Amino acid sequence: MVVGSVALDSIETPFQRKKDLLGGSCSYACSAASFFTRVGMVGIVGDDFPARHIELYNDFGMDLAGLQIVPGKTFRWSGVYEDDMINRRTLSTELNVFASFLPELPDEYSKARFFLLGNIAPDLQLHVLSKAETTAFTVADTMDLWINTARKPLMKLISKVNMLMLNDSEARLLTGRHNLKAAASALLRMGPQYIVIKKGEHGAMLFSKAGIFLVPAFPVDEVVDPTGAGDTFAGAFIGSLAKSGSVSEHSVRESLLYGSVVASFCVQEFSLDGHKSLTLKAINTRLSELKSMIKHK
Amino acid sequence: MVVGSVALDSIETPFQRKKDLLGGSCSYACSAASFFTRVGMVGIVGDDFPARHIELYNDFGMDLAGLQIVPGKTFRWSGVYEDDMINRRTLSTELNVFASFLPELPDEYSKARFFLLGNIAPDLQLHVLSKAETTAFTVADTMDLWINTARKPLMKLISKVNMLMLNDSEARLLTGRHNLKAAASALLRMGPQYIVIKKGEHGAMLFSKAGIFLVPAFPVDEVVDPTGAGDTFAGAFIGSLAKSGSVSEHSVRESLLYGSVVASFCVQEFSLDGHKSLTLKAINTRLSELKSMIKHK
Repeated sequence: MVVGSVALDSIETPFQRKKDLLGGSCSYACSAASFFTRVGMVGIVGDDFPARHIELYNDFGMDLAGLQIVPGKTFRWSGVYEDDMINRRTLSTELNVFASFLPELPDEYSKARFFLLGNIAPDLQLHVLSKAETTAFTVADTMDLWINTARKPLMKLISKVNMLMLNDSEARLLTGRHNLKAAASALLRMGPQYIVIKKGEHGAMLFSKAGIFLVPAFPVDEVVDPTGAGDTFAGAFIGSLAKSGSVSEHSVRESLLYGSVVASFCVQEFSLDGHKSLTLKAINTRLSELKSMIKHK
Repeated sequence: MVVGSVALDSIETPFQRKKDLLGGSCSYACSAASFFTRVGMVGIVGDDFPARHIELYNDFGMDLAGLQIVPGKTFRWSGVYEDDMINRRTLSTELNVFASFLPELPDEYSKARFFLLGNIAPDLQLHVLSKAETTAFTVADTMDLWINTARKPLMKLISKVNMLMLNDSEARLLTGRHNLKAAASALLRMGPQYIVIKKGEHGAMLFSKAGIFLVPAFPVDEVVDPTGAGDTFAGAFIGSLAKSGSVSEHSVRESLLYGSVVASFCVQEFSLDGHKSLTLKAINTRLSELKSMIKHK
């Protein structure tokens, strides 16, 4: 089960400009998860949402029972990337139908064993979480906006999930600690058994009672568009974990490597183009390559 | 054999200000190498160089036959670190006796099997390299200054060494390629069998015919002073490689992990304070920890 935003993105990189791309955390995370497992999407779009995007979701084999299509316009975001292809500036955000989003879970979704609460308002994440069985494994993503404007519900959410995923800058903002080990310790004290701090092109770090796992980023030949990489990482992670069926230090680490690999395909194209033609076989080949890059004997 | 600068550093971090610290690439690299092997230092200091620093070098077991002590003042550098403890600004550079440095190699140094040409003018690195036996394994470090002001001798040097080590920003400056894989490919075409691109707190990347090795940085609780981390990384690397006695994909990767580990001790203190009380046993303990952080099964 994955909840998040569905958006139409307009993106400017130093090299290209693209309009009305299929985007949003839910699109990236669900398609990434779909390589590993059947995934139920929970999101909202307007009646202007192109039918070809629904078709694409179907091609990925997603369960769309939780996708609301309502009168009005789909959420739109536009941004521009700096030369480093990392820092970006939001040009405009039109929430449209997303402004009144109340996630609705089809009954069968509630039985899901793995929940990814993508980056939406913490109140809505809490609402979805309340539908999950207590034995489900739950992962929440967040962003600076909620840290700054909705800290109280965010803290409540964090205390209830099994894993919190966030960027390094967000971990620093949330804890007031610059050092990532110190920030992770503070976050672990808030409740989750696992903290994953994402560092963009520099990979990610997993913190838990078992210690630290350094998740390498797969070095790509060219980054075309980094949008959605973090959501793809989270989606492939939860999908792989669901496929493994159990949560162990091994399955969590292996699934984080899968997250890293699928994210590397994501950034090589705009929108979901990197996911479209992807196969589990190609993912596994790159996973082997990544493992050879961290092998020391 | 390690050649480089010996300096007295004045350093300001967001938290502390320190004057006349023992520094310079040669100090960091030689002390780091000394945990693994007998190391011959080639450098220059003025007659104002405190005797206690010579004593410290001796405590590390360095061979100081190549250290010139000449009338005049020792090289001095001062800089200030930004809040992120990564970016720094040079406040002043007084070359003093370093301005007329001509490295002299004691005869026995020429027989060394492993050469680290620390960051000094490429002409001087070439001079030292000319004394090495052709079967020696040679590593050169460089910096933006030489890329901008001495590109011709630098290119000659690069064509002659086995390994080039440099920062990500320097690799980009030297090759005009932003993507690090592309930059490394361009650098490999210049001659070296190995390219190591250092990424500060994000570790390093090794590129060779055998592929890519992602060198993780050991996450420390607190960075007190990042000065000398790169030199320490290089010194521990060459020392470990010399100890292993042979150059293989395995010994190179293992030695890079040692470089990462010793560098992590370096940044936890000012000057060589992190090296002073360090033992090979403590290094090996942290190496095991680092390996557990990249283990996925």
